[in-house]
Amino acid sequence: MKAEVVSTGTELLLGETLNTSTHYLTGKLSSLGIEVDYHTTVGDNPERLEQVLRQAIERSDLIVTTGGLGPTIDDLTKELVAKVLDLKMEIDSASLEQIKQFFGRRKAPMPSSNEKQAFFPTGSKILPNPIGTAPGALITKDNKTIVILPGPPFEMQPMFDNYVWPELEQVIGLHAERMNERVLKVFGMGESAIEKVLYDLMNLPNLTMALLAKRAEMHIRLVARSTEIMSGEANKALDQVEEEIRRRLGNKVFGRDQETMVSIVGRTLNNKNLTISTAESCTGGLLGAALTQEPGSSKFYLGGVVSYSNSLKQGLLGVSEKNLKAFGAVSEEVAKEMAFGIRSKTGSDLAISTTGIAGPDGGSDEKPVGLVYIGFATAKGVHAEKFQFYGERESVRQLTVQAALNGVRLIC
Amino acid sequence: MKAEVVSTGTELLLGETLNTSTHYLTGKLSSLGIEVDYHTTVGDNPERLEQVLRQAIERSDLIVTTGGLGPTIDDLTKELVAKVLDLKMEIDSASLEQIKQFFGRRKAPMPSSNEKQAFFPTGSKILPNPIGTAPGALITKDNKTIVILPGPPFEMQPMFDNYVWPELEQVIGLHAERMNERVLKVFGMGESAIEKVLYDLMNLPNLTMALLAKRAEMHIRLVARSTEIMSGEANKALDQVEEEIRRRLGNKVFGRDQETMVSIVGRTLNNKNLTISTAESCTGGLLGAALTQEPGSSKFYLGGVVSYSNSLKQGLLGVSEKNLKAFGAVSEEVAKEMAFGIRSKTGSDLAISTTGIAGPDGGSDEKPVGLVYIGFATAKGVHAEKFQFYGERESVRQLTVQAALNGVRLIC
Repeated sequence: MKAEVVSTGTELLLGETLNTSTHYLTGKLSSLGIEVDYHTTVGDNPERLEQVLRQAIERSDLIVTTGGLGPTIDDLTKELVAKVLDLKMEIDSASLEQIKQFFGRRKAPMPSSNEKQAFFPTGSKILPNPIGTAPGALITKDNKTIVILPGPPFEMQPMFDNYVWPELEQVIGLHAERMNERVLKVFGMGESAIEKVLYDLMNLPNLTMALLAKRAEMHIRLVARSTEIMSGEANKALDQVEEEIRRRLGNKVFGRDQETMVSIVGRTLNNKNLTISTAESCTGGLLGAALTQEPGSSKFYLGGVVSYSNSLKQGLLGVSEKNLKAFGAVSEEVAKEMAFGIRSKTGSDLAISTTGIAGPDGGSDEKPVGLVYIGFATAKGVHAEKFQFYGERESVRQLTVQAALNGVRLIC
Repeated sequence: MKAEVVSTGTELLLGETLNTSTHYLTGKLSSLGIEVDYHTTVGDNPERLEQVLRQAIERSDLIVTTGGLGPTIDDLTKELVAKVLDLKMEIDSASLEQIKQFFGRRKAPMPSSNEKQAFFPTGSKILPNPIGTAPGALITKDNKTIVILPGPPFEMQPMFDNYVWPELEQVIGLHAERMNERVLKVFGMGESAIEKVLYDLMNLPNLTMALLAKRAEMHIRLVARSTEIMSGEANKALDQVEEEIRRRLGNKVFGRDQETMVSIVGRTLNNKNLTISTAESCTGGLLGAALTQEPGSSKFYLGGVVSYSNSLKQGLLGVSEKNLKAFGAVSEEVAKEMAFGIRSKTGSDLAISTTGIAGPDGGSDEKPVGLVYIGFATAKGVHAEKFQFYGERESVRQLTVQAALNGVRLIC
């Protein structure tokens, strides 16, 4: 089953409103195994909307529309769907009653323009809207299914979840092909390097692989299509490929699916009953913020120091003036002293430190923008790693956080 | 001039990635007065992408594409644009050199697959990409303009702003109607409260006003349409309305257009030669991270302590055990002690502290999730403010940061 999401609304075409509805619907349809081939957005313009609907119905099996169900004259989605499918518009008296009650609860008479919201293409299954005045509709004709939903996300989403999802599940059934998806997450290798290593795995039968570059990590997305009853087979195929990828990329693969670097580090620290503290310079607090992003982080994260100035590096962390003078704040020696210092102050099992040049200013030939030292202190001793990152200030900071967390992952 | 935004990328059609690029481009094109009639999204599928490009070029004057410029075999936007426009692909040696240098800086040889990124349809104006390896292109043929941009927003946005915007400004000229836009930013008032106060200003002739709720602030967007040569008039109208809004909302308006809470606080501290330090509990480092977001922050931000555990509140900040026991870590007394403590340790002019219940767990009837105390210490003394925020953990944390910065703004 191939689907298209059609959204209408002038606010979308003015850049005022971010199209989160299309994103929401696409995610839901994908997890049902429905292939979404197109998103189309068009304003409240009858000619263009009609043409878009005509094309969508021609090229897709399932069309989900959002928007254009309001009471005003430029809200025309239902009317144009009826026109394109050659259906009449009919009043649904139950819907009319509900709209009247909606206004009744607000002690206001129903404006006559709202009557329009109770009309639907003949043969529609009405989708109730407990939140607003615009019911939706589901229409099937000539093997095409059209789902008509309101625009506001807080009306659209519950309508989809409560009424459309169960219908689609039935339509799809056990014998339709669904997508069995898996995402492997990689740190410390670029897109081309991964492609080179996995090249021969990228075109396997019945399994697709795609590489997605995220800000501070790469995602390898594997998809195996199968029917619900054959999903065991598909999962076995995914297991095999995952195993092979992990064999080739080793510990560069840090997680899978919903796992994030932070969640993995947190889980590992929790499982091993380890505590951690941080001494941050160039990341300015981002590392602590990352470690405390998920609930329950107070179990392993004690806290730390943001020693943005050299005086705080000395005063709060005990970094020596000698090393600051001899090597500068961005140096292996200072990174080590910072990690050692915060571990001593907090008594944590592990400690991490960051010091670097986030840019855009402050770089030199010897110490360019993006140069970062990350220090690690444990009961066994102290060491620091040197990194050279590229990109804007915020990228350098995010990459530093990710590299620091990755270092913790590899130590534990 | 009628425009269409075409985005390609399988991740968009799987619901993995929210299409912020289309939103960004649409907003920019709209403010240039260019009418965006369609958004179309299609996956990395050559047949469908070709068909979408063909249709876009037929029905629109300006087509802006994002995505499909990567080094892998399924990245085909430039190649398909060339096919549809009946142009050859040619190598651009300057781009090739830059891509080689990109890898050179990383001490890695350029993979041969990246060579593809230096090929463009004949006659392209090349748009440099200082951040990644995918340059963009601008092509004009038969009165149609096609702008080809990379997918990742952090590469696409600066390319559009630096190279495409000036080109489009020239094409559009002085006599087209543009949108003169102004955004006023408000903290500490909700949508309905603002609407109530500004109701009579919302339907002025020649000027539209829209309220947009952001995560931790409200935006009031004012638009006056005029030609470039009449923009003086439009700006005068905007000035008048802005003045009236500021009169009614007072210091709830914290900034305008590109100004952010952080940039305003940083500028104020710099101008007044004041230094600041932070003591964070529930924000876990986010406040320091916000203060160090922009370059030059080391002039005013000394650093601070993330005292996530009570022992660090005592050990590093000198919070008294008595108050921790009597009032708990989330209390006015502890917030005050934290701010006082970090100011003493760092010798900064100002100090701010945060302590609260970010959730989702840890709340009680007496101290519900979202309860936050923010402490302020100056030479004149110490005080703390109580807030009750609502929303998810991340919202509570972001709102706390924003309220803390807003407090600094109002103190200075």
